[in-house]
Amino acid sequence: MPNSMTPTPETIDLLIEARWIAPVDTDEVLSGHAVAIDNGHILAVLPAAEARRRYQAREHRQLDQHILIPGLINLHTHAAMSLMRGIADDLPLQEWLQQHIWPAEAAHVSSQFVLDGTRLACAEMLRGGITCFNDMYFFPDAAAQAATEFGMRAALGVTTLEFPGNYASDADDYIAKGLAAREAFRDHPLISFCLAPHAPYTVSDRTFQRITTLAEQLDLPIHCHLHETRQEITDSGAQHGKRPLQRLQELGLIGPGFIGVHAVHLDDAEIATMAEAGCSIAHCPTSNLKLASGFARIAEMHRAGINIGLGTDSAASNNRLDMFGEMRLATLLAKGLSGDASALPAIEVLRMATLNGARALGLDEVTGSITAGKSADLCAVSLEDIVCQPCFDPLSQLIHVAGREQVSDVWIAGKCLVEHKTLRIGKEFHLDASAALWQNKLEVSTGKQRSS
Amino acid sequence: MPNSMTPTPETIDLLIEARWIAPVDTDEVLSGHAVAIDNGHILAVLPAAEARRRYQAREHRQLDQHILIPGLINLHTHAAMSLMRGIADDLPLQEWLQQHIWPAEAAHVSSQFVLDGTRLACAEMLRGGITCFNDMYFFPDAAAQAATEFGMRAALGVTTLEFPGNYASDADDYIAKGLAAREAFRDHPLISFCLAPHAPYTVSDRTFQRITTLAEQLDLPIHCHLHETRQEITDSGAQHGKRPLQRLQELGLIGPGFIGVHAVHLDDAEIATMAEAGCSIAHCPTSNLKLASGFARIAEMHRAGINIGLGTDSAASNNRLDMFGEMRLATLLAKGLSGDASALPAIEVLRMATLNGARALGLDEVTGSITAGKSADLCAVSLEDIVCQPCFDPLSQLIHVAGREQVSDVWIAGKCLVEHKTLRIGKEFHLDASAALWQNKLEVSTGKQRSS
Repeated sequence: MPNSMTPTPETIDLLIEARWIAPVDTDEVLSGHAVAIDNGHILAVLPAAEARRRYQAREHRQLDQHILIPGLINLHTHAAMSLMRGIADDLPLQEWLQQHIWPAEAAHVSSQFVLDGTRLACAEMLRGGITCFNDMYFFPDAAAQAATEFGMRAALGVTTLEFPGNYASDADDYIAKGLAAREAFRDHPLISFCLAPHAPYTVSDRTFQRITTLAEQLDLPIHCHLHETRQEITDSGAQHGKRPLQRLQELGLIGPGFIGVHAVHLDDAEIATMAEAGCSIAHCPTSNLKLASGFARIAEMHRAGINIGLGTDSAASNNRLDMFGEMRLATLLAKGLSGDASALPAIEVLRMATLNGARALGLDEVTGSITAGKSADLCAVSLEDIVCQPCFDPLSQLIHVAGREQVSDVWIAGKCLVEHKTLRIGKEFHLDASAALWQNKLEVSTGKQRSS
Repeated sequence: MPNSMTPTPETIDLLIEARWIAPVDTDEVLSGHAVAIDNGHILAVLPAAEARRRYQAREHRQLDQHILIPGLINLHTHAAMSLMRGIADDLPLQEWLQQHIWPAEAAHVSSQFVLDGTRLACAEMLRGGITCFNDMYFFPDAAAQAATEFGMRAALGVTTLEFPGNYASDADDYIAKGLAAREAFRDHPLISFCLAPHAPYTVSDRTFQRITTLAEQLDLPIHCHLHETRQEITDSGAQHGKRPLQRLQELGLIGPGFIGVHAVHLDDAEIATMAEAGCSIAHCPTSNLKLASGFARIAEMHRAGINIGLGTDSAASNNRLDMFGEMRLATLLAKGLSGDASALPAIEVLRMATLNGARALGLDEVTGSITAGKSADLCAVSLEDIVCQPCFDPLSQLIHVAGREQVSDVWIAGKCLVEHKTLRIGKEFHLDASAALWQNKLEVSTGKQRSS
């Protein structure tokens, strides 16, 4: 019983005690601390003993073998393409795109395809500790629907290309449909939008200029592929007489709201330009290797002060929507390329996968770190399995040892969506059957039935 | 009832039917086939319907959502170092070795350390589908004991260095102790040995010559670090007036039984030399990046015809003993470095992780593929989870999507050691407690207790 000297404990929704907490807003890893959560938000991060005195929690979680981290932010994906996971691997890029991906999309992409594919992606991402994804694909209204069904935070792209397809007839039509989707989800607390011109080689100057204007008027980030391949740069030289980044800069896109995806081929001056402009990069290391695009100069970009987040790209070019894999590969490549084994240490790469992603999306006051006032977007990773033993340093274990299979619990806005490694939602969507159905359709249309 | 025209079915120990089987001795993936196993050996790989007619199995396994592959072969590890998993990450190589790893070894390595550490490594490796490992460490008798306790196939190193340590006083003492361990396990069907001179920079000309003679006399492979770092090559120039490979060649080591570990820095002539000599390479991509050693020229070595296997290296420089991770990283790096997305396709990298490893160890008549007459060393990988759906191509799914967490069942010499993702053996070793005990000792001795 509290005596007259003890204040009455405050009743809150949830108290999570974890053996270790990596808030990410500092470099510190806390031991014996707790996170107090109410009404979807983080009230405080404080010593566990103090938390027990101060709060009376409706639910109390004790995570004795876990490190609690901010929910991971996948800064670049095409979620619905999970239905094309592995449809054409080990092929040269142009053959992959022109003979497999684009024809499959032309034959099959629809609102239902995007809904089903994004549901599958949400299930995979949530179980792997991803609480927010930045999507670029057709039918963003269907993707937003899937994200809201799963309770995920998502930034959807007002995806824009010049050429007509199943979704839109021209760039203005793409923009109109994307902005209509934004209007439809305007009041949803977990949904935001980016303008998403696909790439310098698929969008005209006129359209880029319109997007610059819209970004200013609507205060939206711009999400765009950039300098992914050498070919893209050569072609831009031939067509526009300049490299893509210079062109986008002249068209007004390069500023603090710009998220350049891949940025594999940047020279020193371009790194300086992007750093000075306050741009962000979505680094997708697996995709860059799998499509043989090359090695992004992450250590140099990091030193120059560019805000770098991490992305999985799509399941057709990865083929896992697995941010643990991207974190590990990012730090390994940074070390290998720089010749310095201390490059990109664990805390930096965890920050890329969380706070930096939030910053790129303009969501860093909402999510990306375990900070009082932010949304309770959290991921608990169990280091109990013998494959994670011994554990000299929990952060190092998180990046260099743990895989997404160690994710035990995930919360978004305080709601528990994964509990004890089990997804609590989405069973009604019969994801297995849906994936099988689309596989069959895709195989029939491409005359490819290798897997029977 | 069999009628007079039907031959009586042959009674066998085990019949495994799998949705897909990748025997690896060809490029083919079989559907609707079965593997017949008796007395620890593969009798036949044949259509499932025929198998059911021909055999009466004491045990019948039906793997409806699985791809069955040969057990994976970890061609380079220091298994006992799993007790130093993550003890000093994100540090420059020399600081890592000289200030952390070597002092920890000097303070703690003992027969019990190697026994406990190798047990931990065996448990991790088995659960991840690894059925055979090529080890280089002190007290190989203790490592062999751990491997036999777990029923694993292992090639132990007659590890040899010049400098004295807890295990041996000089190179001749190392060799004597290693050969005594070989004698002790001479009749064990799962245990073999390699001569294992540690590296060009830790072994003298005289010792290398002795090892060349022993390799001929005893018909043993030679397992040796080679051209891991630029420093090693520079130092060899200063000390010996030649690069390490040339020195080893002149000392007689470079032939079909030679396994060069890492081989990160080989020039064109050296690749040709190793190819012509029929050498093998143990490619350890994660370790090479984590220690900032560089990028092995795998695509070129593969084209030149060098036999390339894959290794995890130790848990101190990886930090997972995870061949799925090595397979994926190997193919990704080969694509990224060559600029060709079709480089090192799935079947080739699976072959590296199985048959090529067996060939390097002189065990390719025993293991490494699902071939009649070989030992039943098998790994079943379930592709049932929605993260593996859809599945257009099971081999691609195996390499680019599945992780070791999808390994469901593992057999060595026909004995089931992992069943439904659960290790059937080794509970009596209390691996958790053992890891915690050694962690405590190591932390006390290094004054480092970051993880409390």
